[in-house]
Amino acid sequence: MELRAGGVDCVHVTVAVWESARETLSQIHRWYRWFREHDDLIVQATSAREIVAAKEGGKTAVILGFQNSSPFEDDLGLVEVFYRLGVRVVQLTYNNQSLLGAGCYEPHDGGLTRYGKEVVRELNRLGMVVDLSHVGEQTTLDAIEFSQKPVAVTHANPHFLHHIPRNKSDRVLRALAERGGMFGCSLYPHLIGGRQVTLTQYTAMIARLADMIGVNHIGFGSDAVRKCTPDYLNWLRMGRWTQTADFGPGSAANPGWPEWQAWFQTPADYPELRQGLRDQGFSEGETAQIMGGNWLRFFGEVMGD
Amino acid sequence: MELRAGGVDCVHVTVAVWESARETLSQIHRWYRWFREHDDLIVQATSAREIVAAKEGGKTAVILGFQNSSPFEDDLGLVEVFYRLGVRVVQLTYNNQSLLGAGCYEPHDGGLTRYGKEVVRELNRLGMVVDLSHVGEQTTLDAIEFSQKPVAVTHANPHFLHHIPRNKSDRVLRALAERGGMFGCSLYPHLIGGRQVTLTQYTAMIARLADMIGVNHIGFGSDAVRKCTPDYLNWLRMGRWTQTADFGPGSAANPGWPEWQAWFQTPADYPELRQGLRDQGFSEGETAQIMGGNWLRFFGEVMGD
Repeated sequence: MELRAGGVDCVHVTVAVWESARETLSQIHRWYRWFREHDDLIVQATSAREIVAAKEGGKTAVILGFQNSSPFEDDLGLVEVFYRLGVRVVQLTYNNQSLLGAGCYEPHDGGLTRYGKEVVRELNRLGMVVDLSHVGEQTTLDAIEFSQKPVAVTHANPHFLHHIPRNKSDRVLRALAERGGMFGCSLYPHLIGGRQVTLTQYTAMIARLADMIGVNHIGFGSDAVRKCTPDYLNWLRMGRWTQTADFGPGSAANPGWPEWQAWFQTPADYPELRQGLRDQGFSEGETAQIMGGNWLRFFGEVMGD
Repeated sequence: MELRAGGVDCVHVTVAVWESARETLSQIHRWYRWFREHDDLIVQATSAREIVAAKEGGKTAVILGFQNSSPFEDDLGLVEVFYRLGVRVVQLTYNNQSLLGAGCYEPHDGGLTRYGKEVVRELNRLGMVVDLSHVGEQTTLDAIEFSQKPVAVTHANPHFLHHIPRNKSDRVLRALAERGGMFGCSLYPHLIGGRQVTLTQYTAMIARLADMIGVNHIGFGSDAVRKCTPDYLNWLRMGRWTQTADFGPGSAANPGWPEWQAWFQTPADYPELRQGLRDQGFSEGETAQIMGGNWLRFFGEVMGD
């Protein structure tokens, strides 16, 4: 209902963060079941055309995606296997070093690995989005350059809004846009600099970003997690790779899922954000682009129609 | 080339015998790669319509199938996952007890299990063929009765040709046909009674079978394995479940892949079999049904068009 209220026609959901291939199959099947049980509300989308069809049918399109390459293990063939299962967005790694490249919290980033290049080539061939949100700087730059199709940072913010490793440098922003890529601005409080940041400050960031890379390359990637449990948050942050609490952009003093800013509590608040963009001086057409039109065009370019 | 020479328009290939879910993903991907690398010769088929389209395009249609339920492990959701990957034929078990039911070499057959019923229901819902070739007598009868769609014995022979556990009783043959099922006659020497069996004896068996259950329910399921290595034969027979040689319908004296009968060495010999059916008195139309028309109709009924 939040999605309907917010006018959200398409969402990207995470079916793997640290999961193995086998575990991911069960995660994906949970969505197959939900698609069947709630076919009046949601429908799986694997192309731009299917997103449009979902909207026309009054349903929310759901794109399945990975926030890590763990489901591919060391088997290049699994890229196509998960493509067949409908996965369309793949982040190369989640915070840490993966077999493909370094995450944004690694102290050393050696760039895109040999296997990483093979996987990017396969993602390009099949029509799956290369996502660089939680990826380290050098690996991000390598992937932007190596990919034959435009790539995306689906959910992050510019360093110039909030300078933390999870956000992106001017250099990345420019390289991304030069190759036709998309930048999804996040609404996660830890990535905007805290819930005290105002809607005006946030939309001013978008205006500055548009001046820098062009309005065509900007969208949203809210990072909204609904019904986030402490167990899930620990899984996101710690997986099986550590026994020590890892707070990501949070801290020991603020370890839980943060309270969100008043002007964006849930996806139902997108209309307020839309108004904020208009108030910032974006035209109706530009606002529509940022609110979803750019993503739709990009998905068509990457996934095919 | 054998397939082209034999006029074979569609084959059913095995992608799992004892493999886990994870292992099966890699087996399936080998075929995806072959479909791409040999797209002038073969194409994956997941419906009757796609089989016809392959034939019209001058290609051999390939249906992916399991000879065991091992890829589903204990997770009902994996049935739909493998459906999405294009698997369309599932044998409930291979010789031994599985989580679904008993195999034909088990001394005790307790019939279709609770999980077995759930899987059959899911195979029915999705449109996947229930295959009972290597399945025990009671489990076979239970599955024929429980399934809401016609089922198949894709590759076996009647007890009245050769009375071994791997072949089927008159009771099974009749029950299968009464529910609209298909019986695929095997050409594996150990299942016909040895390579000394003549083409005339074999086609006489088919004539007797047609009298018993009707020509509409008869096809071929050759069991032809091309380039069978000793390692693969050991995998088929022993999996990981035993360290002792198991010869299936073979024997210690005849442990290898047997020499096939002169009148059917490879799938290139189907024209000889066709002539044998005509000589047995089958009309041209009946012969065409047995050579493939019945399977095509059955696949349409089970998989949908």
